[in-house]
Amino acid sequence: MNRIKELFGIKYPIIQGGMIWCSGWELASSVSNSGGLGLIGAGSMYPKILREHIRKCKGVTNKPFGVNIPLIYPNIEEHIQIIIDEGVKIVFTSAGSPKKYTSYLQQQGIKVAHVIANKKFAVKCVEAGVDAIVAEGFEAGGHNGIEEITTMCLIPMISEIIKTPLIAAGGIYSGRSMFAAMVLGADGVQMGSRFVASNECSAHINFKNKIIEADEGETDLTLKELTAVRLMKNEFYDKIQQAYKRKATNDELKGLLGRGRAKKGMFEGDLIEGELEIGQASAMITEIMPATNIMFQIIEEFKETSKRFSSFEI
Amino acid sequence: MNRIKELFGIKYPIIQGGMIWCSGWELASSVSNSGGLGLIGAGSMYPKILREHIRKCKGVTNKPFGVNIPLIYPNIEEHIQIIIDEGVKIVFTSAGSPKKYTSYLQQQGIKVAHVIANKKFAVKCVEAGVDAIVAEGFEAGGHNGIEEITTMCLIPMISEIIKTPLIAAGGIYSGRSMFAAMVLGADGVQMGSRFVASNECSAHINFKNKIIEADEGETDLTLKELTAVRLMKNEFYDKIQQAYKRKATNDELKGLLGRGRAKKGMFEGDLIEGELEIGQASAMITEIMPATNIMFQIIEEFKETSKRFSSFEI
Repeated sequence: MNRIKELFGIKYPIIQGGMIWCSGWELASSVSNSGGLGLIGAGSMYPKILREHIRKCKGVTNKPFGVNIPLIYPNIEEHIQIIIDEGVKIVFTSAGSPKKYTSYLQQQGIKVAHVIANKKFAVKCVEAGVDAIVAEGFEAGGHNGIEEITTMCLIPMISEIIKTPLIAAGGIYSGRSMFAAMVLGADGVQMGSRFVASNECSAHINFKNKIIEADEGETDLTLKELTAVRLMKNEFYDKIQQAYKRKATNDELKGLLGRGRAKKGMFEGDLIEGELEIGQASAMITEIMPATNIMFQIIEEFKETSKRFSSFEI
Repeated sequence: MNRIKELFGIKYPIIQGGMIWCSGWELASSVSNSGGLGLIGAGSMYPKILREHIRKCKGVTNKPFGVNIPLIYPNIEEHIQIIIDEGVKIVFTSAGSPKKYTSYLQQQGIKVAHVIANKKFAVKCVEAGVDAIVAEGFEAGGHNGIEEITTMCLIPMISEIIKTPLIAAGGIYSGRSMFAAMVLGADGVQMGSRFVASNECSAHINFKNKIIEADEGETDLTLKELTAVRLMKNEFYDKIQQAYKRKATNDELKGLLGRGRAKKGMFEGDLIEGELEIGQASAMITEIMPATNIMFQIIEEFKETSKRFSSFEI
């Protein structure tokens, strides 16, 4: 039995990453209805909005779904209260210490997964008693670790020392890469970028189109002095690089980033001035389709890959 | 039939990366005698020394072996003449254009593989008619691409568009990661860091010990303004970072790097002032052993992994 399926009560060990401005109730419910685990991304939601999304999600699926809470955002306490009040049973926390909320959430009957990008934090997760660990490689979109450990190295490294159910993230976008991640030691996978290119993703169509047109080398992990984030290269990104060249201070970088950049880019579709968070996998994603079709494709490709590599010899 | 085995006439599709100061005739012949493909790293050898290494290699193995020539180093023409004179049948070129020498070498009956780190150069390899492509991800040690594409993304990206036999490199150090790389679309793998931690590697014991003690986050891809290189963090590395902080010019960086840094670090064992080229996989390598034992372990682990994932279902 697969530990991630068992833990969350899902049909396939495929998690749709909780992403700011991209994953509301429509995406989460579609993924959950298709046998994966959909996550509502709370990081871009006011508490009232989060409650609305949870309720709408419950209205269209009776399958398990969860909420992702990046611990660096405000309103955490309110978010957690809403999650408990609304009876959500799965929470993914990220960008902060797993020790802060894990046991409290678990006392409310909630399964907790925490996102990490290195071994040091994986050990903290074990100490905090999380139910699952998401190990996210350097190639992943959005906020990420500064050690730059790639999925190829991170997954075996973590799986060899830690017994907690392990979800691999970063550069996984297909059934083939899912199979590879499981060979490396993961029990399941989390995909973000692939699900941004879905009809149900709440991002602006401009952003989705940008992703399916993206080629290699069009993302970069930047702003490491503030909170490291993998962005698609655009005019706003170029401004950051120019700021680096003139040796801007961290305060200047903060000022340049300002407020609402991510919303402007991903939700409002301003591809010039907006912040566009996406992974390296964007180079391989070529089509926007319903989330249920994405799930179908991944699973079919996984099966084909498994068949092709059955009793594989060199 | 495996295309890499067929192309090079070897028992296992495992290439030992040609590395400056680390891979002389002792390592190359041991790997070749163990069924892989050993490569003499010509980048750190004067022409006379290269000839000596080739002759010694021929004296202790009748299995195929090759020479790696980084095209950024001097003496290329002389190296190539020696390779032809000595009857070497396999050449791996890197760090330059595949168009320059491929057809000339092939006319002499030599099989040519070229190392790339992105799709753009993979296409150039196809145009140049190389016999195999080594696609090297961001996590690899030594000189590397600046697009920072990881093995997890690079291998499927290249294998989906290019039909040339494909060797994956970067973050591969075990039978398990070898299997994963083949699932991603590679026909074979190249390992560098793992073979540095061998008895036969010509590097200084200090450097080998440093590798087996290394933990996560101890390497970084730096000097991107000159020739990007993944180094182990040490005092010399810190000086580079300080230079960046004071906004040093490229000429200052060149001056800081100076001459002979790589030799000082890897060959003479100066862990403080030397340049130590190594991949992220160093965090998972824990033991120095004979190359033939490394080969044995990799193959056994590959078989176990293949068995475990046979008819694998989710």
